[in-house]
Amino acid sequence: MSDIRIAVVGAGRIGLVHAENLAHRVRGAQLAAVTTSRPERAAAVGACCGDVPAYPDLDALLAAERDNLDAVVIASSTSAHADNVEQCAAIGLHIFCEKPLALSLADCDRAIAAADRAGAKLMLGHVRRFDAGHVEARRLIAAGAIGQVIAFRAISGDTDPPPASFADPAVSGGLILDAMYHDLYLARWLVADEVVRAYAEGGALVDAGVRSVGDVDNAIVSLRFAGGAMGSLFVSRTTRYAHDLRVEVIGDEGAVHIGRLAQTPVVLLDRQGLHRDTVRTATQRFGDAFAAELQAFVDCVRQDTAPPVTGLDGRAVTAIGLAATRSLHEKSPVQV
Amino acid sequence: MSDIRIAVVGAGRIGLVHAENLAHRVRGAQLAAVTTSRPERAAAVGACCGDVPAYPDLDALLAAERDNLDAVVIASSTSAHADNVEQCAAIGLHIFCEKPLALSLADCDRAIAAADRAGAKLMLGHVRRFDAGHVEARRLIAAGAIGQVIAFRAISGDTDPPPASFADPAVSGGLILDAMYHDLYLARWLVADEVVRAYAEGGALVDAGVRSVGDVDNAIVSLRFAGGAMGSLFVSRTTRYAHDLRVEVIGDEGAVHIGRLAQTPVVLLDRQGLHRDTVRTATQRFGDAFAAELQAFVDCVRQDTAPPVTGLDGRAVTAIGLAATRSLHEKSPVQV
Amino acid sequence: MSDIRIAVVGAGRIGLVHAENLAHRVRGAQLAAVTTSRPERAAAVGACCGDVPAYPDLDALLAAERDNLDAVVIASSTSAHADNVEQCAAIGLHIFCEKPLALSLADCDRAIAAADRAGAKLMLGHVRRFDAGHVEARRLIAAGAIGQVIAFRAISGDTDPPPASFADPAVSGGLILDAMYHDLYLARWLVADEVVRAYAEGGALVDAGVRSVGDVDNAIVSLRFAGGAMGSLFVSRTTRYAHDLRVEVIGDEGAVHIGRLAQTPVVLLDRQGLHRDTVRTATQRFGDAFAAELQAFVDCVRQDTAPPVTGLDGRAVTAIGLAATRSLHEKSPVQV
Amino acid sequence: MSDIRIAVVGAGRIGLVHAENLAHRVRGAQLAAVTTSRPERAAAVGACCGDVPAYPDLDALLAAERDNLDAVVIASSTSAHADNVEQCAAIGLHIFCEKPLALSLADCDRAIAAADRAGAKLMLGHVRRFDAGHVEARRLIAAGAIGQVIAFRAISGDTDPPPASFADPAVSGGLILDAMYHDLYLARWLVADEVVRAYAEGGALVDAGVRSVGDVDNAIVSLRFAGGAMGSLFVSRTTRYAHDLRVEVIGDEGAVHIGRLAQTPVVLLDRQGLHRDTVRTATQRFGDAFAAELQAFVDCVRQDTAPPVTGLDGRAVTAIGLAATRSLHEKSPVQV
Repeated sequence: MSDIRIAVVGAGRIGLVHAENLAHRVRGAQLAAVTTSRPERAAAVGACCGDVPAYPDLDALLAAERDNLDAVVIASSTSAHADNVEQCAAIGLHIFCEKPLALSLADCDRAIAAADRAGAKLMLGHVRRFDAGHVEARRLIAAGAIGQVIAFRAISGDTDPPPASFADPAVSGGLILDAMYHDLYLARWLVADEVVRAYAEGGALVDAGVRSVGDVDNAIVSLRFAGGAMGSLFVSRTTRYAHDLRVEVIGDEGAVHIGRLAQTPVVLLDRQGLHRDTVRTATQRFGDAFAAELQAFVDCVRQDTAPPVTGLDGRAVTAIGLAATRSLHEKSPVQV
Repeated sequence: MSDIRIAVVGAGRIGLVHAENLAHRVRGAQLAAVTTSRPERAAAVGACCGDVPAYPDLDALLAAERDNLDAVVIASSTSAHADNVEQCAAIGLHIFCEKPLALSLADCDRAIAAADRAGAKLMLGHVRRFDAGHVEARRLIAAGAIGQVIAFRAISGDTDPPPASFADPAVSGGLILDAMYHDLYLARWLVADEVVRAYAEGGALVDAGVRSVGDVDNAIVSLRFAGGAMGSLFVSRTTRYAHDLRVEVIGDEGAVHIGRLAQTPVVLLDRQGLHRDTVRTATQRFGDAFAAELQAFVDCVRQDTAPPVTGLDGRAVTAIGLAATRSLHEKSPVQV
Repeated sequence: MSDIRIAVVGAGRIGLVHAENLAHRVRGAQLAAVTTSRPERAAAVGACCGDVPAYPDLDALLAAERDNLDAVVIASSTSAHADNVEQCAAIGLHIFCEKPLALSLADCDRAIAAADRAGAKLMLGHVRRFDAGHVEARRLIAAGAIGQVIAFRAISGDTDPPPASFADPAVSGGLILDAMYHDLYLARWLVADEVVRAYAEGGALVDAGVRSVGDVDNAIVSLRFAGGAMGSLFVSRTTRYAHDLRVEVIGDEGAVHIGRLAQTPVVLLDRQGLHRDTVRTATQRFGDAFAAELQAFVDCVRQDTAPPVTGLDGRAVTAIGLAATRSLHEKSPVQV
Repeated sequence: MSDIRIAVVGAGRIGLVHAENLAHRVRGAQLAAVTTSRPERAAAVGACCGDVPAYPDLDALLAAERDNLDAVVIASSTSAHADNVEQCAAIGLHIFCEKPLALSLADCDRAIAAADRAGAKLMLGHVRRFDAGHVEARRLIAAGAIGQVIAFRAISGDTDPPPASFADPAVSGGLILDAMYHDLYLARWLVADEVVRAYAEGGALVDAGVRSVGDVDNAIVSLRFAGGAMGSLFVSRTTRYAHDLRVEVIGDEGAVHIGRLAQTPVVLLDRQGLHRDTVRTATQRFGDAFAAELQAFVDCVRQDTAPPVTGLDGRAVTAIGLAATRSLHEKSPVQV
């Protein structure tokens, strides 16, 4: 089978990662085009991906390349996802959509229905499910290595807050939906159960930009699963010391930890003690997983198999994130 | 100044640790007597501490040794603490009381008042405040190394549930007050702020004995501090893989982690991978801290200085524990 | 500039790594052809690199593709390297040659002279110099972070001995030249000094195949540098627990360690303790470095700059390896 | 049985450790007296051990306390050990002697014979054999967990050189005998085989005081064992970054590592990365082992059992140290 042709919608940080992987690492696919309204992002794509057409928006892309495309990677703002999915599904493109699928369950349903109607593949970007460490942890848990799961603990910290325009809950969904999202899908996937209740506390404690758009920059969330297990999560936009992503799953016979703080295996020792570097970005930590994730999408399109992460998965995680976000404002637990 | 003479009330696991430290490691003190109603515990005291009189209860001890004592270490059941403190304070003994001070704030107040009236020292057993690692973490935080504190994360897991008779909330105060207690005082001490709200989820998921007395064996607690910081805590009676005590304090400029999983610095490598042992008990992990703690008590008695942990500290922690326990049953956040 | 076209000579384990990187990850280059006399290796190339012509040997390759090639990657047996380099240089191809350059200094000189005469680039495969960890360690040392270097310690262990036919010293150069080679070039590069004396002890202690061809499977080497620093190295073909590559450089003000034992950041905890996986192969550990190394070669060809690792570097390391190998047999220190 | 009475000969750094353990931690023994010619050391003993008679030298001690003593701990300069042992054995005292037993094999033999003649216990100070980590490693190796031992790797680094007067080889035996001694006895004990050949390289690279007395401050030693196993050791008086003691034993089925760099389990994370403290002194690292070691001596005296470390053990290690020291000067391997 010949390579499938894929366009990347949105050339922000994550869009560029996908474009580069399509251009250089994913097999069976070609990067066909990108969309971006900003010339400097088009230049960034050119620098890392070679000569690739850049269109100002999705309409322009589809007008020009429609007959030339098999699939799209949607990496636009979350608030645009559902519309983008509908538009692409309508013309029969397969869709890889970055998380979260949408800012409301209604929009999630609309996007899922559009893909279903069109018979288009719809895969959500749950990148850590393609990381060797998380895959191995899931395998250990499924094999019974830790017994019955009792608790899920997680921290997600980012070194720098996003620009206020992006942090705006109307665009991103807010801290919990946007930045705790990865831990929420890991919780469902690793505990292998559904969340029934969420409670959140949070505050705009550090970053003035986040505060100015009415969001919080740090939050904790308590989860309760249907089977009784519990979740204890912390998310932060301001862990300047590292891109700190660590998960622990505790069972009645053992536990599994995933995560690390150091980027390289270099230790410096001097009179002040022992020093190491830290992971600074998601791409440093999950570079291989981003490539594996897109490969999985390309493979499911080429082999006509079911995507490993579905629209319904994305909807379920969004439901938890929305409940936790509501709890943050109502200051009481919210049923999912 | 000659050595002070100290009796240990209660020769359970922790009472024996204190007796042994008084007999062999603490300077300026002598182990004068113990109380225990069980011959095998008296024998255990003899085996590790030499020839020490053992009395069936506090009344018998005081009847026989009253003029012979300067202080007591109270290591009886929590439900007996307040009465024990009152009785010993009334005859002018200085008091080291194991945590928690009591099962209710009223009893805490009664115990504190008794010591105050008598002019007796009253020090609470907050052992990790005497551990070199926790002391260093506190120093770093106070020195500004992590900036403004944003979040406190903790796990406290014990390898084996206590006997149901001890786990009984009427005796121990229940999982949160009894077993999360250390994390609660560390939270106040390391964040250097007061807790204003607590929310808990928990369940009797593993141990039938714990369930039979109406307690839970695993719980998560969310804390909110007056200044906005947050706490995300997990406590378990059933982490069979280790006595797992780890704390993280995250600030807007950095973070400090305290804790380790391995007991010895031995790594075994074989075809299956890399293997290490784990900490199994609090005394393995905090042996030196228990000795340092009792030394601090003896020093404050001998030098007539203020105890480093006061009855009011114990009361404040109990208040948080009681609020979190109430939240567990009411399924909504509780103000402290 | 258009992509350069590169053939890979030899499709063994390392040849396949280079072929795959040329096919998918290295920019500015195309994989033009490979040589292998074994149909199953040709099939392996096809499986990972797509449709690439495979020739039985270098003569056949050059006969068919000569006008079509800009460069070669030589990944044949060490005993064939010098001849391969001469033959390719003679027709003006640029050359990336796997380590060691040759089995004798005379052959090293012959290969270097051939490339010089032809004006061809000759770069040696010193892969760890392209690993982020080793690069950072070198930067720290050069910046004075550990003061004056005093000692270099290293372990290189492989999980499985090679087939006896490959281990044969007449083919591979023997354990020290073949398997300690990486540590020897790291020693020169990180200590930034030349080795003047080597002493070795070794034995065929484990593997019958290695013994049958007259080589040893485990050895230690002591090095002395011109400036007084010392090296203490261990090499093994039989560390079944891991592909164990760790280096320490100790200075008079500090030390730097490079290396790790675990492959993924997953920790399993159970009643037996703490368990992790281990690195099993060089490609698991240095996958990115292999790509970076070949990228550096392609870049120096395309930009007509000097290769970062020269034939003379390869010759110098070979000289140390030969001296240590001689010491192994003579049982006394040998000057380099 | 009543407590045995023990004097400590020499109140230097290690003598003080033993005195303090006898005074406070070892059971079944009393600290009876110490010798020191320096008033400030006598004061140091008083500060940590209470009221203990201090004599200017061994003659004075024995003259005054002879009938009052059961045993001695010899912690004088190595050059005085053999005479001290002879003198104490002659009057029937049991003897714990710090390592090394003596500066020559003749003196070792003289000391051993003196104890034998007198029927006195003679135990050598091999402290790491009483450390839980090393004991566990030995157990694992003896249980076959790593298969047949192939190699022993070790580093021993001290943060600060001793005063030149002590470093003087005529007093201490020189760097290898004095400071690599612990690794040499661990090598025999963990490999469970005898060393047959040693080769050393060393230099006075850092410390002018060490150089001024004709010793080296850094050295590497290669060992060969009778059964074919190898040893690769580095010793340093100048690892200012830590008291760095780490050992690895590699077998044909696995490996065991013993050692750690960090003192406390505290990790500080900030914008510069991850930071930990380091072990600074042997007593920080091996405080419990020093107490266990002396307890073992006291127990073997009280129970009339054989010492766990004998004079012959001490002699065997001294023989390796002397051979390696000779190799250092002769620049060729020396048979033990």
